[in-house]
Amino acid sequence: MDIRIGQGVDVHAFSGEIGTLKLACLEWSDSPLLAGHSDGDVVAHALCDALLSAAGLGDLGSVFGVDDPRWAGASGKTLLHEALRLVRGARWNVANATVQLIGQKPRIAVRRLEAETTLSEIVGAPVSFSATTTDHLGFLGRGEGLAGLSTALLTR
Amino acid sequence: MDIRIGQGVDVHAFSGEIGTLKLACLEWSDSPLLAGHSDGDVVAHALCDALLSAAGLGDLGSVFGVDDPRWAGASGKTLLHEALRLVRGARWNVANATVQLIGQKPRIAVRRLEAETTLSEIVGAPVSFSATTTDHLGFLGRGEGLAGLSTALLTR
Amino acid sequence: MDIRIGQGVDVHAFSGEIGTLKLACLEWSDSPLLAGHSDGDVVAHALCDALLSAAGLGDLGSVFGVDDPRWAGASGKTLLHEALRLVRGARWNVANATVQLIGQKPRIAVRRLEAETTLSEIVGAPVSFSATTTDHLGFLGRGEGLAGLSTALLTR
Repeated sequence: MDIRIGQGVDVHAFSGEIGTLKLACLEWSDSPLLAGHSDGDVVAHALCDALLSAAGLGDLGSVFGVDDPRWAGASGKTLLHEALRLVRGARWNVANATVQLIGQKPRIAVRRLEAETTLSEIVGAPVSFSATTTDHLGFLGRGEGLAGLSTALLTR
Repeated sequence: MDIRIGQGVDVHAFSGEIGTLKLACLEWSDSPLLAGHSDGDVVAHALCDALLSAAGLGDLGSVFGVDDPRWAGASGKTLLHEALRLVRGARWNVANATVQLIGQKPRIAVRRLEAETTLSEIVGAPVSFSATTTDHLGFLGRGEGLAGLSTALLTR
Repeated sequence: MDIRIGQGVDVHAFSGEIGTLKLACLEWSDSPLLAGHSDGDVVAHALCDALLSAAGLGDLGSVFGVDDPRWAGASGKTLLHEALRLVRGARWNVANATVQLIGQKPRIAVRRLEAETTLSEIVGAPVSFSATTTDHLGFLGRGEGLAGLSTALLTR
C-alpha cells in the first residue's frame, strides 16, 4: 500500500462586515464576514492544502493563483471539488481527513455534525471537523480572524 | 489495513497564579498555572482531540462539553482515558501519536522523556513528546499561555 | 506494515538585518534574516522535528542541544541529514513529508518547486513544500518572524 500524509493551514481576517459567512462549506447567517480573494472559507482552504500537499500537487496559491480570474470569488466547495479532481487524477484515494477551526466565533458546536457530514460528502471519505479557541489570546482570541488546520491521509 | 489520521490543537491562558501545573499528565511545581474548565493540560487535551478526530468521534467540546459537570476539573489523564475508551470502542488501535508543546516555559527538556513515557503508558502506544518556542514572538512568546499541537495515527 | 506519524513546528524571529536568508535549504538573497542558534531555517527545522517525532527519537532541542557547539551555526541541511541518519538507523523509511511556511515574505511562489525538489532530494522521499500567510494578522502577519509546520509519515 502506498500512503501519503498532507497538511494545510489557512488564516483569513474578518472584514468588519456582517452577513452570511461561508465556513466549512456551510452558510452562517448574521456573522462577521471573512476577507479573501475567494469566499475566505478557511476550513475548505486548509483542507484543499492538506489534500494537495499529500498528493504532491502544490498548494492553493500554485493551483488557484490569487491573480487567476477563474477562481476569483470561488466558493470553498468549488475549490475542494477541483483539488479532489486533481488528487484522484493522480490516482490517490482519500483515507480520511481532519479540519480544526480555531477562533472564538462562530460557535460551531450546534452545527459540527452538519459540517462534518457536508465535508465528508464532498470529499467522499470521512472528514472530521472540530473546533477550539485560543482562550481569548492573540489575534484569533481577539476575534480578528479565523484559522483552519487540516491533515489528510491518501492511499493507493 | 484501515488507517486514519487525526490532529488536535489546544491553547490555554496562564491564570496569573503560581502552583502545581498539570502538563503532559505530569505535575510541575512552582509553575505559572493554566486556566481551564478542566486542569488546562494543553498536551493531554490536544492529544485527546487528535485521537477523537482520527476516529471520527467528535472533539473535546462535543465529548466533554464545558457545561457537563462530570468533567469539571477533570485531569488530562482522565480525559485521555475516556477518549481512548471511545476510540477502542470504535475498534481502532493507536499506531502512534505525537504532541508538541509550544511556549516559553516551563522548560521541559529535563522531563521530556518522563513525559513521553507517561503519555505512552496511558495511550498504550508510542507517544512522542517534543517542545519548541516561538522565539519570544506573539502571545506564546510573551508567556501569556501555552499551546499543544498533536497528531495521531489509528489502524484496524 | 509498521507506520508512524510525526509533526514539527518551528518559529524564528527576524533579526532586523538584511542578507542571504537560508530557508527550505535554499538561499534567498537581499532578504530579512532570521535569528537562531543555527541558520534559523524554520522549514528544515520543522521537518527535522517531524521526522524525529515520528521515529520517537526526541526533538531538535534534545538531539541538537542549543548549548552543543557541534551544531552552532549548523545549516538546516546539515541538521536534516543528521536527523535522517538517526531515523534510518532506527530502521524507518520516509513515506513522505510536508512542510508549510507561514509568513508574509519572502514570497516563495516562484521558487516553490525548486524548494520542493531540493528538500525531496535531501530526504530521499517526496517532500511537499507549500506556503501561506496569516492575512497580515499576528506576529507572522506583521513580518516579525516565520513559522514552519511539518508532518511526516514513516513506514517499515
